[in-house]
Amino acid sequence: MDESRVIEVKRDILAGNDRSAEKFRMLRKEEGTFLLDIMGSPGAGKTTFLLALMESLKKLSDAKMGVIEADLESDVDALKIKAAGIPSVELNTKGVCHVEMGMMKQAYAAFGDLKFDYLFLENIGNLVCPADFDTGCHRRIMLLSVPEGWDKVCKYPPMFAVVDALIVTKCDYLPLNEDFDMEALKEHARILNPKLDIFVTSARTGEGMDDVAAWVFEKRKQMLS
Amino acid sequence: MDESRVIEVKRDILAGNDRSAEKFRMLRKEEGTFLLDIMGSPGAGKTTFLLALMESLKKLSDAKMGVIEADLESDVDALKIKAAGIPSVELNTKGVCHVEMGMMKQAYAAFGDLKFDYLFLENIGNLVCPADFDTGCHRRIMLLSVPEGWDKVCKYPPMFAVVDALIVTKCDYLPLNEDFDMEALKEHARILNPKLDIFVTSARTGEGMDDVAAWVFEKRKQMLS
Repeated sequence: MDESRVIEVKRDILAGNDRSAEKFRMLRKEEGTFLLDIMGSPGAGKTTFLLALMESLKKLSDAKMGVIEADLESDVDALKIKAAGIPSVELNTKGVCHVEMGMMKQAYAAFGDLKFDYLFLENIGNLVCPADFDTGCHRRIMLLSVPEGWDKVCKYPPMFAVVDALIVTKCDYLPLNEDFDMEALKEHARILNPKLDIFVTSARTGEGMDDVAAWVFEKRKQMLS
Repeated sequence: MDESRVIEVKRDILAGNDRSAEKFRMLRKEEGTFLLDIMGSPGAGKTTFLLALMESLKKLSDAKMGVIEADLESDVDALKIKAAGIPSVELNTKGVCHVEMGMMKQAYAAFGDLKFDYLFLENIGNLVCPADFDTGCHRRIMLLSVPEGWDKVCKYPPMFAVVDALIVTKCDYLPLNEDFDMEALKEHARILNPKLDIFVTSARTGEGMDDVAAWVFEKRKQMLS
């Protein structure tokens, strides 16, 4: 196996995916649907964060919201979203480590005639691969939970470099994690990504959630203007 | 891009990697070096676990130990291992989401004339991709930390299916995670993998670490016999 040939294949896949993503993003914008890609490690708290975010967004408007729940397998998260009364589509990648446009378009089509003001993609729990794949969303955010440790910004820089906002989650765990250096995290993250917006949150206590909701609300307004 | 061609490329890569891994494993066995592949999400506690494991192993024998520290970038973990007086090699994958045999052989060669009784690979923090890639180790274990949640066994089954042991880490967080269902985790993990050994540990309090060390000690004895 020729190594350069493998790299070429990867480039072809990414270029095709990017073109498809750009078109998808335009179409959703024309419909007024703001798409948000939510990334992070397994256990970063994506589903719990998303449920809290939607609660906070409801205070700002009576927007129509939907969720695409990506997982290797299972419907654990999709059921949690459905239980909250939010339309959701389960996107099982069957072991694939990221979401590509082919999957995304299929998942979106599964909503049928339903249209949304906000559509959230809960991406595969993976701090590495999803950074490479444009999912056709208007904004991308990543979650980093306090128990994971602040130094992940040094060890997994690509995702920090590509997102629009970093959400530090589970900040109610801070008293248990005295070595979590929030200032060092912010400093290193902004070296990788000077325009990065950073929020410190706890979905459990509600801390910071209204600020994130206001940011999402504002980003949709920017998209429409 | 023809989808079947991409799948074929992946198969070729994996088959070549498997052959190389088998040879590497045989050579290390002949030298008496037991290799352990340690996998898990970012923040599962791999480095801290490894430091505690080596402390416990020292109580059982005066074995020579070494560590290969794989990361996308940075030398954060390698420096922690060096500070503990353990020979270590830093394996930077430059953004690649898993460790392959080419990298593994290069890392091993970097030890020069040093020989070990135990050589540990701290794999990339990723609960998905490393499951696919044989790193030439004799045994593979995965760490799942309590803050990640027990339901990861439903959402990321491939890794649970391929490892020899599951180490639940950070069990000192259990009082903060009342919804962590240990029995459900064990039950689901054993459905995927009936021979799986399971340990509940905390590197911080030392709970369970001597049991894991005894398991590792035993697996090396089995390899040599």
